[in-house]
Amino acid sequence: MALANEHYLKLKAGYLFPEIARRVNAFAQAHPEARIIRLGIGDVTRPLVPAVVEAFHRAVDEMARADTFRGYGPEQGYDFLIEAIREKAYGPLGVDLSPTEIFVSDGSKCDTANILDIFGLDNRVAICDPVYPVYNDTNVMVGRTGPADERGYYQGIVYLPCTVENGFIPELPDEPVDLIYLCYPNNPTGTVATRDQLARWVEYALEQDAVILFDAAYEAFITEPGIPHSIYQIPGADRCAIEFRSFSKTAGFTGVRCALTVVPEALTARTPSGERVGLNRLWNRRQSTKFNGVSYPVQRAAAAVYTDEGWEQVSREIAYYMENARIIREGLAAAGITCYGGVNAPYIWLKTPGGMSSWDFFDRLLEECNVVGTPGNGFGPSGEGYFRLSAFGDRANVEAAVDRIRSRWGR
Amino acid sequence: MALANEHYLKLKAGYLFPEIARRVNAFAQAHPEARIIRLGIGDVTRPLVPAVVEAFHRAVDEMARADTFRGYGPEQGYDFLIEAIREKAYGPLGVDLSPTEIFVSDGSKCDTANILDIFGLDNRVAICDPVYPVYNDTNVMVGRTGPADERGYYQGIVYLPCTVENGFIPELPDEPVDLIYLCYPNNPTGTVATRDQLARWVEYALEQDAVILFDAAYEAFITEPGIPHSIYQIPGADRCAIEFRSFSKTAGFTGVRCALTVVPEALTARTPSGERVGLNRLWNRRQSTKFNGVSYPVQRAAAAVYTDEGWEQVSREIAYYMENARIIREGLAAAGITCYGGVNAPYIWLKTPGGMSSWDFFDRLLEECNVVGTPGNGFGPSGEGYFRLSAFGDRANVEAAVDRIRSRWGR
Repeated sequence: MALANEHYLKLKAGYLFPEIARRVNAFAQAHPEARIIRLGIGDVTRPLVPAVVEAFHRAVDEMARADTFRGYGPEQGYDFLIEAIREKAYGPLGVDLSPTEIFVSDGSKCDTANILDIFGLDNRVAICDPVYPVYNDTNVMVGRTGPADERGYYQGIVYLPCTVENGFIPELPDEPVDLIYLCYPNNPTGTVATRDQLARWVEYALEQDAVILFDAAYEAFITEPGIPHSIYQIPGADRCAIEFRSFSKTAGFTGVRCALTVVPEALTARTPSGERVGLNRLWNRRQSTKFNGVSYPVQRAAAAVYTDEGWEQVSREIAYYMENARIIREGLAAAGITCYGGVNAPYIWLKTPGGMSSWDFFDRLLEECNVVGTPGNGFGPSGEGYFRLSAFGDRANVEAAVDRIRSRWGR
Repeated sequence: MALANEHYLKLKAGYLFPEIARRVNAFAQAHPEARIIRLGIGDVTRPLVPAVVEAFHRAVDEMARADTFRGYGPEQGYDFLIEAIREKAYGPLGVDLSPTEIFVSDGSKCDTANILDIFGLDNRVAICDPVYPVYNDTNVMVGRTGPADERGYYQGIVYLPCTVENGFIPELPDEPVDLIYLCYPNNPTGTVATRDQLARWVEYALEQDAVILFDAAYEAFITEPGIPHSIYQIPGADRCAIEFRSFSKTAGFTGVRCALTVVPEALTARTPSGERVGLNRLWNRRQSTKFNGVSYPVQRAAAAVYTDEGWEQVSREIAYYMENARIIREGLAAAGITCYGGVNAPYIWLKTPGGMSSWDFFDRLLEECNVVGTPGNGFGPSGEGYFRLSAFGDRANVEAAVDRIRSRWGR
């Protein structure tokens, strides 16, 4: 008698973004004339840059000729891409990685979810609140939690509230934890952690023998100097942290699919019998057995991001989105709406006008302004009363959305 | 104190193919003059067909223009590809699937591994011996087994020997099992299951309330009429089977990455409390939360396989490989080597000459003929004394390999 994984049944409602899609589709069908502006899901809208497109085409052509055709690639990614990441993404930060520490994958969502495979079920997990829902949901699915309480907190997880009061940087937990998810620049609050703030977490993790799962998917959007782009800029982090990065937002790859995860050789965890094992070796085994590498043309396209030409083109797109962020942030602030983020991240985290609930504001924004955003409580209970707007839209749409919101809620 | 997943430590040696790669690389470095012919790993060598290349390029161009750019796609795959699969892959078999039953992914290796996520740990698992190692290793990694014994059998798994005696179709297990992996056309033995043989398994699974995990990655290589291409050609299979298919071998996508998994709406499993849950719903949740869909240009390339032009071109490549299979099979048989498979599958399963062990034959074949194959025992203990040759090589290489083997071991 086959048994289902009953832990899935503990999950409340659908995953956030499908639920948003459902409501937007229902509205669009009922109001076919509405010009809906989507600033909800954090999805890019600008096309791939020319250097990437050219490399993509060239690699497809290689696949069309017997003498340059490539079959299975290394599960960990091709050397040409790993070297580009080492030199161009980490070199300038003073972070010296070995090629075996970098694992190319088809997405940070997959990696931040799959990384749980290499950890025992008995780890105590700390998750920021609010945050990207995948961290929480994958821990529920693997059976590390009890059911959710009425607020949406799952029994067994240590939640770290990120609020206005602590500047959206959580306090150190007051009970021991073993795995800690941190995400900076933060999704959804758009805030960043300073070097000192990250250093405090690294120190804590080393003390506790804990592992930090550091999601740096938005590091390319940091505009202010002095803000760390990688947790490995903090001494000692190579002994306590795994880092996730993505081409999705950096280079418009949400539909192309490429990301990377760094698992340092120095990083270890214990077995129940007290033996120390290298997590790099475990992740390598996980990827070798359960993954077959990223599409070759996609890896060539990703490597083109690190050419001088590619980087210059990609930087221009990032600047475009960050100008959107400025327009949203300043426009709403001028209308009296309290906003956070949007300076070093493509997200603006706003306090709902008049203390509305997040979903009420979602529905009214959709119905009255035809603008789609993301309800803050979808990222965790502490997000209630907040709302996320994404800066990834088209400029004209972003301006129109700000105008519509100001004319409806501005004072 | 972070705990590693200690189950990984039960895995013996490396995953099979990396170990082969290691030995081949060592030999190649020591003998740079050797012209090594690789018939080991089941990797295609023929380039992508023109219809696929054209669709791939066209989709890359779409990604280069703002008005046709696509960001995140549906985690389950785009409708255009799902519809093509429904109509062109399953329609002609008389198998009527609904679009929500098809999940497009980046590989059957990933899917056959990840499918375990939706099942409870307490299921008793039956695995053929020999077979594709991923089924066994992923069950070890998730903690469903004890350690391996000296033969390589892991405690807790029910192994189903596939031998010459049973025509490589396992007997029904003599103890109750809940999950059953079947792979036909079979990797590594190259054998197929008849309709009656599959029907017996479907009947058994329905009786036992078990789920069959049916790996049909090689169905496109079936040449004989009457052999089922899908387990859903057997009545009742929609209530007891999940099917995996791949573009990897069918269309030369090993480096491009696209596959699909069918989870019927009618398929259910029980929770420990006795509740019935739909596995389609669980897999949908799994994919929505832990996967972000397949690269858009890759999905367009895959859909082109099902155009009239694409299918005709792909069929020609399949015929090319199957002619290779005939050359290997008949060539070695004429030399007195006992061969199985190679008629409805791109693999030839041969008995090692003189009763050599599989790895001994591997090493001697590499050293004396400079030909790479796959040791049969790498697929399970019952594969000891056998050896797999792949028909995916270039014609001239296949002919040269057969000549070398015949001149060394032929009588």
